[in-house]
Amino acid sequence: MSARPRFVLLAARGTSDHAALYAKYLIEVSLGLPVGLVSPSTFSVYGARPQLDDVLWIAVSQSGGSPDLVESTAAARAGGALTLAVTNAPDSPLARAAELGVDVLAGPEKAVAATKTYTSQLLALWLLVDAWRGGDGSAAAGVPDLVATALQAPGIEEVANRNRFTTRLLTTGRGYSYATAREAALKLMETSYFAAQAFSGADLLHGPLALVDHDQPVVAVVADGPGGRSMVPTLQRLVERGAELTVVGDASAVPGARAVVPLPSGVAEELSPVLEIVPLQRLAYELALARHLDPDEPRGLAKVTSTL
Amino acid sequence: MSARPRFVLLAARGTSDHAALYAKYLIEVSLGLPVGLVSPSTFSVYGARPQLDDVLWIAVSQSGGSPDLVESTAAARAGGALTLAVTNAPDSPLARAAELGVDVLAGPEKAVAATKTYTSQLLALWLLVDAWRGGDGSAAAGVPDLVATALQAPGIEEVANRNRFTTRLLTTGRGYSYATAREAALKLMETSYFAAQAFSGADLLHGPLALVDHDQPVVAVVADGPGGRSMVPTLQRLVERGAELTVVGDASAVPGARAVVPLPSGVAEELSPVLEIVPLQRLAYELALARHLDPDEPRGLAKVTSTL
Repeated sequence: MSARPRFVLLAARGTSDHAALYAKYLIEVSLGLPVGLVSPSTFSVYGARPQLDDVLWIAVSQSGGSPDLVESTAAARAGGALTLAVTNAPDSPLARAAELGVDVLAGPEKAVAATKTYTSQLLALWLLVDAWRGGDGSAAAGVPDLVATALQAPGIEEVANRNRFTTRLLTTGRGYSYATAREAALKLMETSYFAAQAFSGADLLHGPLALVDHDQPVVAVVADGPGGRSMVPTLQRLVERGAELTVVGDASAVPGARAVVPLPSGVAEELSPVLEIVPLQRLAYELALARHLDPDEPRGLAKVTSTL
Repeated sequence: MSARPRFVLLAARGTSDHAALYAKYLIEVSLGLPVGLVSPSTFSVYGARPQLDDVLWIAVSQSGGSPDLVESTAAARAGGALTLAVTNAPDSPLARAAELGVDVLAGPEKAVAATKTYTSQLLALWLLVDAWRGGDGSAAAGVPDLVATALQAPGIEEVANRNRFTTRLLTTGRGYSYATAREAALKLMETSYFAAQAFSGADLLHGPLALVDHDQPVVAVVADGPGGRSMVPTLQRLVERGAELTVVGDASAVPGARAVVPLPSGVAEELSPVLEIVPLQRLAYELALARHLDPDEPRGLAKVTSTL
């Protein structure tokens, strides 16, 4: 295919799917290209073999091992797409199936509930898009120090203790931060086994708001930028309905949050998901400990998940 | 643009977003075109104005009123896309913003938790795709009678009574039926206010399986076809983990379900979502009544939701 893709498809599962969701927003906003998130079953279950000239296919996977991703990536390549695998395993079947590869260089991911591979995927995808639009990556130079600061964000233990007995929790965010909300919900489910649901700040108002009462903990991710500002109507409705609201980020626009976990400032909103997830990974950790669970040994899960 | 789109983008919110998800599978499998689900905030919050030549943009909305859909559809049209609005309101702002329109002809939707507009959207989208691939629509001729049969599916009250006190429920399906799982979860949330979470049968194994124990009700939608057959590994894992499993559809492949709600046979799998959702809408209704709630008056919701 040409080196100028007109359409981008992102294929991923689980945590990597949230990194792909982040990349979707980034590519659409920064590069003005339409992006689709792939349903691998279209290829693996229904045998679809679409014509994919002018398509850039980006598969994102920590292990590079899931058979449905390998099969759909091979099919996309055969269908004319330029294929790229973003993995933490450059010798994996997925990396071999794709024409191009990016190694996120996270080092061995020892946790079943992936953490550092997620932030590494986000940064690798940002660097890819930044290079594509002609940047030199320097806008991310401060990220390592800011992540170290985010890791020390105060108030996490208090939020964990307060939600010790909850059976459910909502997370929400909009734009880039919607990916953070999705990934935070998955970490909470994997390590504390309660129903954690993520909605975009807009979708939350189209139905799921009915869930919200005084017994509903909600974690809202509010970045410093247009996505964060667009959360204002959602935050107002949550406060009106008496939600047990924790804001991660900027709580200044809407008073009424029960707790605020501040984030360090100093990066563009498009990089903030790399910071935002860190206190939420810590929340999953602290909440699992408060519930006498082992966050390193989620029940029912293995390191590599194979789906066909 | 040309009359031969190379990419399809679908824009929708809430229930209509599940009809859009159904259409995504249908277009990818039947027409071999790549499809993306639009994040309207890319346009309305971040101001992206992508170049959309060769793109068919399909906006799906019951009311045709949500400002973010109107704005993003207008922007897509200005960007070169062929725009089509699938609504139940042919005089709505969304229908006027799009070049082409399909009226789903459901008649007035009196319920806040939309039901007949959803099945009408599914059928309208199927008819559109069927015409596009050269069909005459006759494969759907049996659908009205089969829906009437599905409405009488036995066992719904029993499943509702058994879950009277649950605080959470998982729904799952794969391929076309994944849309059913998503829509069923939304109906349950809107009318019974507990945490209902939908996962594709594959994604469920990538993390959320950790939630599942004997106290976790799971509703699996298993169609008669490749998507339904691909649920077998998921059903096996659910039974192994002791889930309180209800199967809607074909339970023959994996014994161990607590309850089975049969579906009438006689349509291709690609049409089965029109049938599948009907007993699940009834489940939402029965469960709300069992919990002494009014399914016609969900708390915190209005008929038309406006998001920017």
